[in-house]
Amino acid sequence: MKIIDGSVTAPIGFLAQGVEAVIKKLDKKDVAIISSTHLCAAAGVFTTNIVRAACVDVDRAHLENGSAQAIVANSGNANACTGQPGWDDTVEMARLTGKLLGIDPHEVLVASTGVIGVAMPMDRIEQGIRTAAAGLSREGANNAAQAIMTTDLASKEIAVEIEIEGCPVRIGAMAKGSGMIHPNMATMLSFITTDAAISGRCLHEMLVKSTDSSFNMISVDRDTSTNDMALILANGLAGNPSINNPASEAGQVFQQGLDFVTTSLAKMIARDGEGATRLIEVQVVNADSQATARTVARSITSSNLTKAAVFGEDANWGRILAAAGYSGARFDPNQVDIYLGEQQMAADGMGIGFDEDQARAQLQKDPVIIKVDLKAGPEKATAWGCDLTYDYVRINAAYRT
Amino acid sequence: MKIIDGSVTAPIGFLAQGVEAVIKKLDKKDVAIISSTHLCAAAGVFTTNIVRAACVDVDRAHLENGSAQAIVANSGNANACTGQPGWDDTVEMARLTGKLLGIDPHEVLVASTGVIGVAMPMDRIEQGIRTAAAGLSREGANNAAQAIMTTDLASKEIAVEIEIEGCPVRIGAMAKGSGMIHPNMATMLSFITTDAAISGRCLHEMLVKSTDSSFNMISVDRDTSTNDMALILANGLAGNPSINNPASEAGQVFQQGLDFVTTSLAKMIARDGEGATRLIEVQVVNADSQATARTVARSITSSNLTKAAVFGEDANWGRILAAAGYSGARFDPNQVDIYLGEQQMAADGMGIGFDEDQARAQLQKDPVIIKVDLKAGPEKATAWGCDLTYDYVRINAAYRT
Repeated sequence: MKIIDGSVTAPIGFLAQGVEAVIKKLDKKDVAIISSTHLCAAAGVFTTNIVRAACVDVDRAHLENGSAQAIVANSGNANACTGQPGWDDTVEMARLTGKLLGIDPHEVLVASTGVIGVAMPMDRIEQGIRTAAAGLSREGANNAAQAIMTTDLASKEIAVEIEIEGCPVRIGAMAKGSGMIHPNMATMLSFITTDAAISGRCLHEMLVKSTDSSFNMISVDRDTSTNDMALILANGLAGNPSINNPASEAGQVFQQGLDFVTTSLAKMIARDGEGATRLIEVQVVNADSQATARTVARSITSSNLTKAAVFGEDANWGRILAAAGYSGARFDPNQVDIYLGEQQMAADGMGIGFDEDQARAQLQKDPVIIKVDLKAGPEKATAWGCDLTYDYVRINAAYRT
Repeated sequence: MKIIDGSVTAPIGFLAQGVEAVIKKLDKKDVAIISSTHLCAAAGVFTTNIVRAACVDVDRAHLENGSAQAIVANSGNANACTGQPGWDDTVEMARLTGKLLGIDPHEVLVASTGVIGVAMPMDRIEQGIRTAAAGLSREGANNAAQAIMTTDLASKEIAVEIEIEGCPVRIGAMAKGSGMIHPNMATMLSFITTDAAISGRCLHEMLVKSTDSSFNMISVDRDTSTNDMALILANGLAGNPSINNPASEAGQVFQQGLDFVTTSLAKMIARDGEGATRLIEVQVVNADSQATARTVARSITSSNLTKAAVFGEDANWGRILAAAGYSGARFDPNQVDIYLGEQQMAADGMGIGFDEDQARAQLQKDPVIIKVDLKAGPEKATAWGCDLTYDYVRINAAYRT
């Protein structure tokens, strides 16, 4: 596997564009289209919030046949909590995009992100869709990645090339994150493309698996959004023998590539959490079960007190152990070792003497690595988060106005 | 029922004192004793964190016989994650206090709050206990309340007088809160005294019930502490016919008084949440079950995004509905009405036109009242929290150092 230039248009046969449609207040891009020249096998995973935008339900319906050919997305307005008019607007976005691209509207997936509960400015959305459709190109990927940003400071893009049965296959992706980022899919938008030939069923299974160890392991603020989704389109143009079994050798190679892409994006999202200055990586090792490892890791990345202590470079390992303790997972606190980077802070649940300056130095690194050894079994999990800063408060105190 | 002056020494036969023992860095009181002239029926509720301080387990053991006569507490050091030495220190605090007061050490309850994972400075603790024991008085209650504060800005005290079968009975209480405040008991220290005659079993049942609608309904930061507890001592000196049944008329009167005391303290704790500028009260009404009402109410008070929006006076009702949606409770989002104070923001899950200035005015009030009408049944619940501010981050970025 090698990392290659570009993102969603790195795989053969994909085009993209992002344009300014004045949905956001600032002078920034806010409508994006990604499309394939050929119909794709497609899959999606969606927010678990029962309060969800119409696009989530529309996309689920459009994915029932396991195929899609384009994604239309906007930032600046989530089109959530907007009732029947919001539903109609979502359907209209798919209809118009399909018409402009000459494809069935049911093969168009829709994504929105931004403020909740405000009617969509459909005249501007529609103008944006027309402009984006007219400008679709391989070079438009970065514009598209910019157009899905909200409070993100940087666009998030990656592409890799893998080899499946002698045939080069590409996977490209973009994502946006920043606020309302919390495990259980419901975290952000991510659009993944690949020229691999692969069945829709297989693609769905692999996306779910990949999401579980990447997007579902990040937390910025525990707030699970109404709109978030990861979508994947596979157009088969790489010409590899079609992958139909995730357990096959080809399936495993593809899974590996996909996991690298989703994990890379997940870390970019956590690192660019609202107001964040540092990525926090929590490794829980030697747990008695996967569930315990995951639960403990996510509880620590979600703890406001731990996050604020990292921001303040305060080696307050007691907060780490406390966050593990209230996670709901069962383990023996008197057996836990805790490390900050290379430095051990606690052994068997008790603090050990450590040098404050050296501990502080571990907290000044980016990423900050926290390792929790439960000494109870063979399982492990990694979760990512970010520090809690003044800027998180500033950004969210006046997001809407 | 009437509110009376004082706190834990308002009931007959209780004394208290708080002194400076230089456990905290600043020149503040940090060791407290509350004692009764007579043995009391006693009960406690404790943190649900599996990582917990020795004092939690010691107190559980001391309460097995349903009685106690004194509480010794310190701030500045939680004596949690301190292993066997920490356990020994807790036992020593009870032993010394018992000796100085001339009572069985098993009738002494111990509470600690402060930094986790640091050895107790027992020489200073012991000196503090000696000084506090020597100074016990009815006038010492406020000193004691000050001595359990950590980042609290104000001491939290209240007392009421109720009448049980013609006999005046008093309930007094103090609490500390501020950070690591999150539902499920595990939130703070609260010490309650009463001169009511009441059985230990009855007292425990009533304390659990009262805690569920008060301390378990507040959240400052979702971080559940290692040390927190509510303790109640009842010495019977009021001379009322002993209460043995919570369902009796006398039991109901006592429950009402107790609930008023615990709810008042819970609101004081939420209002004084670290960095808070305003109390947030979330009323969930017309839920299909108590569980749904409680879950939705607590999810909203726990949402960082909602809390930051209140701080920013941003009438972002979509975040309120989103927080209800990811709470785990089941309800129909398309039926939900949301109010900020007097002003309706959403009907049937959709935004309705509202005046921004009027909405902002609702958010400038203290408390900020958020009402969520699920229109699904007869149940309701109220939860309390506070806004998320720059000062929360500042306080927690450098708590330990």
